[in-house]
Amino acid sequence: MDQDILYHLALGSGSHDLVEMFGDVKFVCMGGTPKRMEDFAHYIMKEIGYKIPTGTQLMDISQYSYRYCMYKVGPVLSVSHGMGTSSVSILLHEIIKLMYHAKCKDPIFFRIGTCGGIGIEGGTVVISDNAVDGMQDNNYAVATLGKIVKRPAKLDKRLVNELKALAHSDDPYDTVTGTTMCTTDFYEGQGRLDGAFCEYTEADKMEFLKNLKAKHNVTNIEMEIVPFAALTHHAGIRAAAVCVALLDRLRGDQIGTPKDVMEEWQSRPQVLIARYIKKILQVA
Amino acid sequence: MDQDILYHLALGSGSHDLVEMFGDVKFVCMGGTPKRMEDFAHYIMKEIGYKIPTGTQLMDISQYSYRYCMYKVGPVLSVSHGMGTSSVSILLHEIIKLMYHAKCKDPIFFRIGTCGGIGIEGGTVVISDNAVDGMQDNNYAVATLGKIVKRPAKLDKRLVNELKALAHSDDPYDTVTGTTMCTTDFYEGQGRLDGAFCEYTEADKMEFLKNLKAKHNVTNIEMEIVPFAALTHHAGIRAAAVCVALLDRLRGDQIGTPKDVMEEWQSRPQVLIARYIKKILQVA
Repeated sequence: MDQDILYHLALGSGSHDLVEMFGDVKFVCMGGTPKRMEDFAHYIMKEIGYKIPTGTQLMDISQYSYRYCMYKVGPVLSVSHGMGTSSVSILLHEIIKLMYHAKCKDPIFFRIGTCGGIGIEGGTVVISDNAVDGMQDNNYAVATLGKIVKRPAKLDKRLVNELKALAHSDDPYDTVTGTTMCTTDFYEGQGRLDGAFCEYTEADKMEFLKNLKAKHNVTNIEMEIVPFAALTHHAGIRAAAVCVALLDRLRGDQIGTPKDVMEEWQSRPQVLIARYIKKILQVA
Repeated sequence: MDQDILYHLALGSGSHDLVEMFGDVKFVCMGGTPKRMEDFAHYIMKEIGYKIPTGTQLMDISQYSYRYCMYKVGPVLSVSHGMGTSSVSILLHEIIKLMYHAKCKDPIFFRIGTCGGIGIEGGTVVISDNAVDGMQDNNYAVATLGKIVKRPAKLDKRLVNELKALAHSDDPYDTVTGTTMCTTDFYEGQGRLDGAFCEYTEADKMEFLKNLKAKHNVTNIEMEIVPFAALTHHAGIRAAAVCVALLDRLRGDQIGTPKDVMEEWQSRPQVLIARYIKKILQVA
């Protein structure tokens, strides 16, 4: 190819000097909503003491993709991935190509997410040490040229431990590790009773959720970790997913926590990732 | 439940009078990006001659969900669904619940999308008359309580014909019907050679794409139609998907058409849907 158009990022190897723009990236942080990733960009700027010139402001580099948002704060890229396996997979393909074109050296990828917890309180932070799909399969399956191709959804164990060590004993919440289940559907796929349809009982649901915990050590449920783990692993990129539980699914389905509480909860994975980035950058 | 929180829409049956707000909705139009659906809201307002009071403007009703956008123009709801099967499935669950709570009478759902064409020129409009996944299965499969549950991905044949009849012979582009393939991945899932990874040859890809057309009548490929067709069909909602092809996949993988041309192309499905809505509303 004479040039590579990263269509969903509104960037291209022909139209942009990607080495000049992104060559210094060391950390790629991603999460569902543009709002959360814009907030993270501002937060990490303060945390690492990164200065931008007077009269400038952070801008959404991928604004004209109308798909994802992307902010750059020195060595940190903060990008939204939307919701679900397909949305995060498009982003990962294009971000991995971006890192390649930009000649970035060993960037680390983080997912900063939200999830439903199983047997943990709302507000608990979960570092994933294992990723499974809705059938407890550790692989990312993609129908490719009419055949199912599977790739292992593996996370970096050392990174899990490094992150775990950065949880403070005086944090006013728990930080735990566990298996994360990735579903393709938020309602029936996660055993909720409150979707547009439901063809099972409350008892069926509770048995399912309790077995997830008891038999499979599933600590939380979200919708992106399997492709996130598989595509980064396949590319040889160290990656970790840190999510905050918005509720304990053993106690209900609906997310009804007040907005301000939920916002504080969503900052918790960001705090942990910021500690890691500061440690690596040796910022006090 | 005493109330139903439509979390990803930032609406709820306890916090909002959904009958008062949405009871008159007759058409729900959805597409990938917030930008396209905001544009469609303004376009349909002009087309149906809907007036809003001086000193007011359309607003994004779901702004504080940070997930989807939603605009209401009288009987028309214009909503973004993000990218991929999971993202559209969350939206559909919550919109179907919204229609139920609001006591809407027989709303019709439209997906206004973009796609890759097979053997059709960029800019061609495709009305889907059949929906299959990456394995040519006509069903939407969701892992539910540890078992795969399948639901038929059926579209409304009458609606397909009604839409087809609204294509004008003097439209400067073709409007065709055909089978739409829904993939979970944009790169390898659609046989592209330009993803972050590719473990097949150009010849493998071409054989795959040509067989899609020859053996399975696949006319276009996108990432949402299977859950869109299955969930609307299961809810007894008439629904149609109209997409514009951004390229002919037999000629390439990259989307490099100039922005202004692409924007005009993306308006074409909107023109067709507007004709339908005007016909039903009996607007000249």
